[in-house]
Formats: sequence, structure tokens, C-alpha cells
Amino acid sequence: MWGGRFADEPDPRIAPLLTSLPVDRHLLRWDLLGSLAHLTALADAGIAPVVEASAIGRALREMLAAADAGTLVADGEFEDVHSFIEAALAALQDVALGRIAETEGVVLPGYTHLQRAQPVLLAHVWLAYVWMLGRDAGRLRDAYRRVDVSPLGSGAIAGSSFPIDRAREASLLGFAQISENSIDATGDRDFVFETTAVVTGVLLHLSRWAEELILWATYEFGFINLPDAILTGSSLMPQKRNPDLLELTRAQAGVGLGALAGLGAVLKGVPPGYNRDLQEDKAAAMTAFGAAGMALQAMTLAVGRLIVNRERMVAALRGGFLTATEVADYLVRRGVPFREAHHLAGRAVRDAEAAGCELWELPLEA
Amino acid sequence: MWGGRFADEPDPRIAPLLTSLPVDRHLLRWDLLGSLAHLTALADAGIAPVVEASAIGRALREMLAAADAGTLVADGEFEDVHSFIEAALAALQDVALGRIAETEGVVLPGYTHLQRAQPVLLAHVWLAYVWMLGRDAGRLRDAYRRVDVSPLGSGAIAGSSFPIDRAREASLLGFAQISENSIDATGDRDFVFETTAVVTGVLLHLSRWAEELILWATYEFGFINLPDAILTGSSLMPQKRNPDLLELTRAQAGVGLGALAGLGAVLKGVPPGYNRDLQEDKAAAMTAFGAAGMALQAMTLAVGRLIVNRERMVAALRGGFLTATEVADYLVRRGVPFREAHHLAGRAVRDAEAAGCELWELPLEA
Amino acid sequence: MWGGRFADEPDPRIAPLLTSLPVDRHLLRWDLLGSLAHLTALADAGIAPVVEASAIGRALREMLAAADAGTLVADGEFEDVHSFIEAALAALQDVALGRIAETEGVVLPGYTHLQRAQPVLLAHVWLAYVWMLGRDAGRLRDAYRRVDVSPLGSGAIAGSSFPIDRAREASLLGFAQISENSIDATGDRDFVFETTAVVTGVLLHLSRWAEELILWATYEFGFINLPDAILTGSSLMPQKRNPDLLELTRAQAGVGLGALAGLGAVLKGVPPGYNRDLQEDKAAAMTAFGAAGMALQAMTLAVGRLIVNRERMVAALRGGFLTATEVADYLVRRGVPFREAHHLAGRAVRDAEAAGCELWELPLEA
Amino acid sequence: MWGGRFADEPDPRIAPLLTSLPVDRHLLRWDLLGSLAHLTALADAGIAPVVEASAIGRALREMLAAADAGTLVADGEFEDVHSFIEAALAALQDVALGRIAETEGVVLPGYTHLQRAQPVLLAHVWLAYVWMLGRDAGRLRDAYRRVDVSPLGSGAIAGSSFPIDRAREASLLGFAQISENSIDATGDRDFVFETTAVVTGVLLHLSRWAEELILWATYEFGFINLPDAILTGSSLMPQKRNPDLLELTRAQAGVGLGALAGLGAVLKGVPPGYNRDLQEDKAAAMTAFGAAGMALQAMTLAVGRLIVNRERMVAALRGGFLTATEVADYLVRRGVPFREAHHLAGRAVRDAEAAGCELWELPLEA
Repeated sequence: MWGGRFADEPDPRIAPLLTSLPVDRHLLRWDLLGSLAHLTALADAGIAPVVEASAIGRALREMLAAADAGTLVADGEFEDVHSFIEAALAALQDVALGRIAETEGVVLPGYTHLQRAQPVLLAHVWLAYVWMLGRDAGRLRDAYRRVDVSPLGSGAIAGSSFPIDRAREASLLGFAQISENSIDATGDRDFVFETTAVVTGVLLHLSRWAEELILWATYEFGFINLPDAILTGSSLMPQKRNPDLLELTRAQAGVGLGALAGLGAVLKGVPPGYNRDLQEDKAAAMTAFGAAGMALQAMTLAVGRLIVNRERMVAALRGGFLTATEVADYLVRRGVPFREAHHLAGRAVRDAEAAGCELWELPLEA
Repeated sequence: MWGGRFADEPDPRIAPLLTSLPVDRHLLRWDLLGSLAHLTALADAGIAPVVEASAIGRALREMLAAADAGTLVADGEFEDVHSFIEAALAALQDVALGRIAETEGVVLPGYTHLQRAQPVLLAHVWLAYVWMLGRDAGRLRDAYRRVDVSPLGSGAIAGSSFPIDRAREASLLGFAQISENSIDATGDRDFVFETTAVVTGVLLHLSRWAEELILWATYEFGFINLPDAILTGSSLMPQKRNPDLLELTRAQAGVGLGALAGLGAVLKGVPPGYNRDLQEDKAAAMTAFGAAGMALQAMTLAVGRLIVNRERMVAALRGGFLTATEVADYLVRRGVPFREAHHLAGRAVRDAEAAGCELWELPLEA
Repeated sequence: MWGGRFADEPDPRIAPLLTSLPVDRHLLRWDLLGSLAHLTALADAGIAPVVEASAIGRALREMLAAADAGTLVADGEFEDVHSFIEAALAALQDVALGRIAETEGVVLPGYTHLQRAQPVLLAHVWLAYVWMLGRDAGRLRDAYRRVDVSPLGSGAIAGSSFPIDRAREASLLGFAQISENSIDATGDRDFVFETTAVVTGVLLHLSRWAEELILWATYEFGFINLPDAILTGSSLMPQKRNPDLLELTRAQAGVGLGALAGLGAVLKGVPPGYNRDLQEDKAAAMTAFGAAGMALQAMTLAVGRLIVNRERMVAALRGGFLTATEVADYLVRRGVPFREAHHLAGRAVRDAEAAGCELWELPLEA
Repeated sequence: MWGGRFADEPDPRIAPLLTSLPVDRHLLRWDLLGSLAHLTALADAGIAPVVEASAIGRALREMLAAADAGTLVADGEFEDVHSFIEAALAALQDVALGRIAETEGVVLPGYTHLQRAQPVLLAHVWLAYVWMLGRDAGRLRDAYRRVDVSPLGSGAIAGSSFPIDRAREASLLGFAQISENSIDATGDRDFVFETTAVVTGVLLHLSRWAEELILWATYEFGFINLPDAILTGSSLMPQKRNPDLLELTRAQAGVGLGALAGLGAVLKGVPPGYNRDLQEDKAAAMTAFGAAGMALQAMTLAVGRLIVNRERMVAALRGGFLTATEVADYLVRRGVPFREAHHLAGRAVRDAEAAGCELWELPLEA
């Protein structure tokens, strides 16, 4: 293809070093659709002759049909990443809300610094994640709005010299807008960086939820049981029931962060206009999206199927003196200055600890 | 303060290890304002006795006045980070638009792969950055909307047992909304992660613009001159005129990325509810904000004061065969299939190169 | 200084944007020593006139004395980072070995996947960290060997035209070797990257040890108590005893990782030869070193002062069926194929769980 | 396999979420070898019965033969990563030394801040990279020494209850040492982190060299030409000859950094003992190794085949006043204080610039 300008054949060792096929095949369907829209615009503009255009169009549509049918390899997982992640976020929120509805009145210790702090409702704990995921979904929608811009017609850097109807191309592909500057459109990748950052934010939330569930599933906490169906055993230790699914979810935050940091480092300082460095954007984004897809599905399974041990939660309200804050607040309401109330409540805790009893079991005269 | 519960004095080596003062002092003013709002709500609710409340309020207002007057050390640079960065983005866009207005008709090579590609207007190149910064400003506004939520009243994890008017506190502090879940409000830090990611995106854009200007300011490109006032000399080499300002701007993208990756790693897998790990959020955010502040100011200075060498830009349109695409397009318009047109134009380039002339200087019969 | 070449004064807004003073002041002492060595070599070579050289030398020595006396501000913490970190590593290993010596015969559950796996000695657990830190110390020594090279005499890029005795300069400064290539010496920063990576490896080890101690100090595990002297209370909750020291240690791994990722991103793609980007190397390295210093001291305090709850550890050997592997191994020794032995031991665990007893309490006929 | 303990079948959605097959298949050969060594030790210890052991051994050897023959899929690229990268480093050094040997007497501007600084030999420039790669090879060897430790016999966490000859296993597999602590051996991953950091250091060096060659290959610098065989054309612009190979090499530093930052984040704060999070270590390491393999091969091709434009290099010694430092040094040798000499040389530069001549063309009386 480049032959006119080139005197020598390419070195056969070059192609494998430059290939992005393992990544690009995921985008096959979308490449075909883009080509079709561009072909239509070229035909409309009278540049592509009718006969050839319809022949090429037919070929593209056949490839597209083959891609959709799975005959041509296209990886469905990445079909529309934004919709997929948004749907997976919503699915996890739904499952969580369903579980929350079952927990009426279940109380357990709220922890700060992993030390028992104050009694909270289980619903309170889980709704915190629903709020976090809700913000994540908002970020994803904001990113989507900024991504929803057709770059078609930008050419290599300077646009096209043909009278292409860019709005028509955009509408054929379902884009809401067209890009306004072809240098920006071909050389910038902030839409990948933003989306990868949003997805990494999701993963950070899930890593913390996974950590909490891993803790709750220990013998020591025992607040939940994970059913056999989502556990992993050990080929060495016959008694083991391991929450591998949650551990991998926790790890995915690292995977996402690596993709984000790597993508940023790839982009940093690259001269504007397209440079081949930008090819690495897709592997980074897909790594992060794949991690988010894995983690969202894993958490949806885990949250949906875990078994709440109400008695263990309630039992944990003993020990840890969770009501000390309430004691101090009570004294404040009775007119004791807060500093003194805090001190008195602290001393009561020491007394109860020494006596091996709960705060409410202390003799009143103490 | 914690004395009621504690039997021993703290080890004196602990405090310096835990301190976040070097970071927190930047937030002094805002801590004081938050305390004032909370005091007002406590007084309104009848919890803080009137006399004490007004005494404390007076003291807080005095400290606030001292902070504003600079008597109490508060670092003004971080006063309102969102507004500051947004204003700095707008200032750079304004300066760029002003310079663009002066460039009517200035044409230079557009580059891809750092090779001359096609002729473009200088305005086209610079407007690309204006668009990038515009998207950054949009991201900042979206983040601001999500950050504009008062957490006051969340207590340590379980909210407050006093009938505090949280809406009033929020309005005293200028927040648009109140947080809905106290575990989420005290334990999550995605607002820091989002803002740091947005700011890192700004820095990535600036790193690429800085790279371009560094290239343009070389002896070899010579498209711009930087005036003495923003250059740095060498204490060893008397002739040197170095664009240190632009190099540091380029480096700030690395600084921002490091802050972002570090913040994510701090947050990853930390159990929900407040943990002291979260203290590190502020240093990371301030590092990124400081880098963005530096880089935006540096680029505003550089773009505002650089001198455009029109002749060098125009002269660069010779060499590089920038019109080869136009030759191919012309042939296409005359009915030559694109593949053949591309090949013919490529051969013309080889002929012109061999003949040591431009495409338009080739004899017509070739 | 650069005045000969420059017609205009520098813009006053430039200097604050370029400054690295907040970082460089930590290096004051070493800058002075380097200047002294270079002065000596210049005087030896007859380039610096004797009178002036001795006057300058006197001034430098006075500044050095002032720096050492603390009159001139130099931050002692970074005096010799390699030695400091190596000493801190050794101190932590020593403290750990001391504590290990006290634990003879203390057994507790070893965990994989945070599930009880097999009984292990407490000494076994803690010696794992001693080994990890030992490898870290090895890495530090290897890095030190590569860093122990004097760049003096490299000039800005092309070396010096004066007959300086570089070996003498190196020996005055205590370097083992001199650099062989001045472009490499002035433009490369891999010695910073290597050292920062080593230090980040230390921090990753400590983050995992801190996590383990945080877990052990929970009410639920209860394997250790942390004495009041290294705990933090809560200004809200009177009963709280929080391991902030360990949480900040865990977070420092994120801080170190951020410094490392940021440093790498700063270095990536920068053209060789000195560029001002490289100024950012010191802030990154110092952030990582500071984090390692904090974390090593914190862990040395925590490990040195924690109180081992032997009874809680021993009690935890009940529950979790930690001897199931031993049961399977026993059957294997008796000739049962491993797959079947594993299955039988697994079934025994289920039986014991159903019966609410330990494996060794199952009736023999089962 | 885990059936004895488990009542329910695994959920079929779990397995795909947990799989590490795409990564692990690269390690097939080494898994088989490990299994063989362990089998031998078990047979030696009399635990695996002779007949079964020899049957299993035969099967493993057949699989190994199939793996070596390529019938069983094993990816040769990762066969022995340390040797591969070390050999690739040496190959690049060799190619560079070969090219350096051809450059006797070729002088070009040395650059700092991408501004012409002082004349240097081309050999001087390229030897800088040979030194950098030499240090990288040293780091790799140090890492190799620390990795060369057999963990076999560590079991899941607590070692093995069978009298396995660990030294024999290690020698069968070619390890120099055996691990001393089974908790450390099963739960730590610093050998992956160290190796990934070393490889990322290689990539950072190559990214800077690639950047330099990209600059040199521009129309504006023109110091080198890249032959057609390693260039890439443009499907749009017929004249383009793009150094994609070098751009991708530059980008690989970002890829490596992402892998390193991600790996660190995965490891951070994970409780000791094996956790499934650690599964992600291999994908990170392989990403970094793959990037280093690509970049080393690309640079070996590029350095081996680039064409040096001596005339362009020599011509660039005019312009930029590269000898200004020499002028100042000359004045110093004649007794002029350095500060004044620097100033005078700077003024000479301004005069020459105003006169449009070189420093050596200035009239002597100036």
C-alpha cells in the first residue's frame, strides 16, 4: 500500500513488533460500522463511484453479519463498554438493594480503624456502597457525554478535502455530536484517560467492599458465610473454604490503577498529532474495563448469595463498648461539658473492662 | 483528651510519625469555617449553651480573621482549588485565543509521528489545545457538582445523636447538598480521586503542548522564539537559552500521575469506615493541584510571550512533500481509484526527492 | 550571571515556578562538600588561583560548619539516605528477632486467604518478615554499589576542558568510582529510580505486616494488644483505641508507589542530556525515603511494644479444623492415595462441623 | 477435588472469573518441570509408590515433550525471562558497539534542554546508552541471584510433613538455593516486583533513546535516516515515512510503568500468606517483560539499520554557538575570572548573533 514512496520491502521482523491485533480484534464490529458510515458519506458526496461503493458496502455488511454471528471473531464482552459497565453497576446496586430490603432491624458494629466504633444498621453499611456506585454511574454518564462525539472526517490530521457530510456520518453511527478540531480529534486521548479513571474509581470502591466481606467471612468475624457455590477449596488443605472471588475483586483495583498509570505515562509528553504511542491506549482501557467487568460480576454474585449471620452480628454488639459515645452524649444532654463527658465515659469504659462487663452492666453508683 | 480510656501517656516518638500538619495548615481557614458552622448548628439545637457558644464563636472568628490577614499561617494558594484551577484554565484559554487572533493566515506543517504531514493553520494547532482545556474545564465542573455536598453531621461513622440542622450547616458553608449516608461520607474519598484524576488530565494535555513548544523552540525547528524574560541560562555555557519553564511543565504530568497512582494505591483495599490511611489523600491532592497550578501559570506565561517566526513556519512548507495527499486527492477527483492515486503520488514524491525539487516543481510529463 | 547573552531581565513570576529550594535545602551539606572537592581539584590543576581558592574554600567550610551546627538549615533526616534506611531496616530486624526469642512454643493459626489454614509458630510468622527485610537490605546494598560513582567533572554534558583529577575528587567525597561517560552521568537518573524502587519494595513488605498487625489487634482476632503509648484515641468515641500508626504505615506503601510511578513518568521519553524535568527526581525520591523512614520507625515501635496474647492465639487453634491437612497426610502415610485421603479428610471436617466438635473429638468409627 | 468439604457444586459463572489460564499457559513447561522434581522427591522419600510414581512421571515427561515440540501450547517467548532479557540487552549493546566503531571522528552537537550545548562525538552519545544498559544488566543479574531460590516443599504455608529432600528438588530444577521460610516463600512476591522494576528501568532508558532517534529522524534534525525496511507508511499520506517502531518503543516505558504500579498496588496491604490477589503478579510481570522484549528488539533493529548523516551532523556544529564554553574556558586559562569570562563569552555570542556569523568569524578586535 505504501509502495509508491518506498523502495525496499519491510523487514519481516517489524510487523509482529507493531501489531495491535490481539487488542484490535475486539473492535472489529465498530471498525466495520465506521467504514460503512464513511463509505456512505463518500458515496453521497459523489466521491466513491456508485457501483464500487455498493460492492464495498455489500462486502462490509457481510463481514458485519459474520462478526455479529460470531463467524468473524469479535469479542462481545467489549461491545459497548459504557453500557456494559453502567448496566453492571446498576445490577450490583439492584442486588444490594434487594439484600438490604431483607435486613430490616439487623444491627452490627460499625468500624473505624477496624475497631468497633458504634452500632449501625446493616442497611446503613450496604447503602453506603449503593451511594458510591451511584456516583460512579454519574461519572460514567458524564464521560459518555464527552465521548459521544464523532471524529470521522478528521483524516490523518488536517481533515478531508472531500465534501463529506460529517453530521450524516455521525448520525449513522449514533454519535450526538461531531468533533470540531481535527488535530484534537486525531491526537488526543483524554476520552480514554477519563473513562479509565472512572472505571478505576469503581474498582477502588469494590476493592474496599471486597475487603470488608473478606473480613466478615473470616472465622473471627463470622458476620457472613459464603455458600460453597462461590467458594474455592484447597488442593492441599481439605477444610479450606476460600473467598478467592473477593480476593481477585480486591486485586482488580490494582490492575485498574496500573492501566491508568500506564496510560497516563504513555500519553505524557508525546508530541501532539497522531503518534504510534497512542496505539497502547486500547490495551490499557481494555485491561481496566475487563477488570471492572470481572469485579462487578464477582461482587454481584457474592452480595447476591452471601448468607447473613444475624446472631454473630448482634453478638458482636457486646464487647468493644460501642455505646460509649452514647453515654457521653447522654451526659452532654444532661449539661455536662463535652470534654468532661468524654472523659467520664472513657473512665466508665476502663472500669467496665476491668470488671469484665458491659457498660450497661456497671453498677449505677460507679 | 483521650485520657479517660487511656492509662499510659503517648510515646513522644508517635506524634511526629502521625502528623499531617505540613499538609493540614493549608486547610486552616476551611477547618475554622466548618467549626463555626457546626457550632452554630449545635447552638441552634440547644446543645451548646449560649454563653459558651458565643465565646467559642468569637474565638473562632478571631482565628479566621487572623488566618485571612495572614497572621495565622494559611496558604492562600489552595484557598479554593476548584475555582483556582478553573480560573487558571480559563486564563490559559484566553491567552491562547488572543494569540490565535494574531495568527491569521499563518500556515505551518502539521506533524504526525513527528514527520511533516499536511499544511495546517497555526490557529488550527492552537485551537486543538483550547478544545482540550475546554473538556478539562467540563470535567472539573462535573467533579465540583459531586463534591458540593456537606458531610457535616456525619460524626465518626454513625451520624450525630443531636438534632443538628444539617441543611443549615450546609448553607452556612455554601454547600449545595448534604450527604445522605454517614458511612459513605466519612469513609469514602472518591471526590479526591476524581478531582486528582481531572487535574492529571489537564497536566497530560499541558505536557504535550509543552513538548511541542520545546520542539518549536529548538534551533532545528525554529518556529518560535522564547523571550529572554522566560528563559533560563546556563552557569557553564554562556550561549544557552533554555526553556526550563516548559520542561518543568512537561514533568508536572509525571508528578500528577504519581499523585494519582499513589492516592489510588492508598485507598485500595482499605476497610470501609474511616482509617488513618485516608490522611494521605490531602498530600496527594495538593501535590497534583500544585503541579497543575505551576503548569497552568507556566504555559500562560509561555504562550502569552512566545514570538512566532512566521518565515520559519512558511519555509518549512518546502521539504517533506506536504501536498502529496492533495495530489492523491486531486487524482481521485479526476476518477483515479484511491489505491492507484496513492501509489502515483508516492512515486511522484520519490521522483521529486531524487530530483531534489518540490512536488510542484516536477516536470508535468513525469 | 547569564547576563552576557541575555538582553532582558527575567520575568519575576518565573523564579517561583522553577524553584526546587524546598527540596534542595535537604541537600545543602552535600552540595557544599561537592563544591569543596571540585575547588580542591581546580586548585590542584592550577586553574583556581591559590588566594581566591583558599578564600572560597574558607567560606565553604564556614557554611559547612554552620550547616552541621544547624545554623544553616539542612534537614538531617536525609543526611545519608542509604545508611539511614539500611540502619532502620536492621533496627527493625533486631527488634523482631528480640521479640521472636520470647515466643518459644507460641503457636497460632497460619492463614491463607485470611482463612485458618494450618498451625504455625509465631516465630515462623515473624521470621518471614525478617527474611523479607533481609532481601530488601540486599537490594539496597546492590543499589548503593551502583550509586557509589562520582559524576564530578562531567560538566554540563561534555566533561571539562581543565585537567581536573577526577579520582582525587571522588576520593575526597568518598566515592568508590568515577563515572565513565559524561552524557550518561549528567542525563541519566536510573540510580534514583532503582533506589526508589528498592524503598518501595520495603514499604510493600511493611504494608502487609501492618495489615496483619491491624487484624491481630482487632477485637475479633485479639492476638495482640497495642499498649496505650502507641495508640490513638478518638475525640468523639471515648472507648476507641486505634492503631493509627499501623494504618499510616500501610498507607506509606501507596505513597512510595506514587513516588515511583511519578518518577518513572517524569523520566519517560525525556530526550537524553540534562533537561529540567530531572529536577523532579529529588522530590520523588525524598517522598519515598520519607515514607520508608516513617514506616520503619513506626513498625519498630509497634513490633517492639506490642503485647502477645498467647491464650487467644492458642484458643484460635480450635475452630477452623487446622489439622485437616495432617489428617490427610496421615492417611497418605497409611497408604491411602492422596486424592482419596483429601476427600476423606474433607468429609471428616463436614462431619465435625455438623457435630459442632473438633476433628480430634470425632468418634473414631466415623 | 474439594468435594469432601463442599456440599454444593460450584456456580458455573465462577470459573471464568477466577481463571488465569491465558497467563498460566505461558508457564506450562515450568509447571511440568516443577511437578516432575516434586514427584521425584516424593518417590525418593517413599511417599509416592514406585509404580504410580513412574506412571505419573512418564505422563509428565510426555506432556513436557509435547510442550517442547509445540504440540502442547507453551509460549516460547517467556521461556526464561531473565536469560531472554539479558541476552537481548547484550545484543543491543553489541549492535551499538558495532555502529560506534564505524563512527570514528563523527562529531555533532550535544544537547541539553534540547538546545545545542557543546560539540560531542557520536560515539560519546551512543556509549552513554551502552553504559546505561550495562547497569541494567547488572540489576538483572542481582535480581536473578535473589530469585534463584527453590520454594518447593513450602506447601500451602506451613511446609510439608513428608521427608522431602528439598535440596535435591532444587538441584533437579537448577536452583542455587532453597527458601528458608515457607510463609515467606508462599506469600511474598518481591521477586516479581524487583524484576518488573528492573525491566521498567530498561524501558525508561530505551524510551529516551527512542525519543532521541525520533528527533534525529525528523526533517528538521535530519541526523539519521531510517531505511524503508523498518519504517511505516501512511494509508492516507503518500509521502509519509514514519518511525512507528521507535514510537512504540517509547510507549513501552509507559506500559512497563503501568505494570509496575499495578503490581505494587495489588500487593499493597494484602494480608501475608497466600491470597488469590497474588495471581495478578504474573500478568503484570509478563506485560512488562513483553514490553521489554518488544522494545529491545525494536531498538536493536533500529540502531543496527539506521543510516548516519555525517554531513548533517557536522553542519549542525554551525549555529547555536557551541564553542562559547570553550571561549570562556580559554579566557579563564588566560587569567580572566570565570564570572567575567562567562559574561564576555555571552556578549560575544550576542555580537555574533547580531552579525549573523559564528563565534570564530567575529572580528578579533570586538
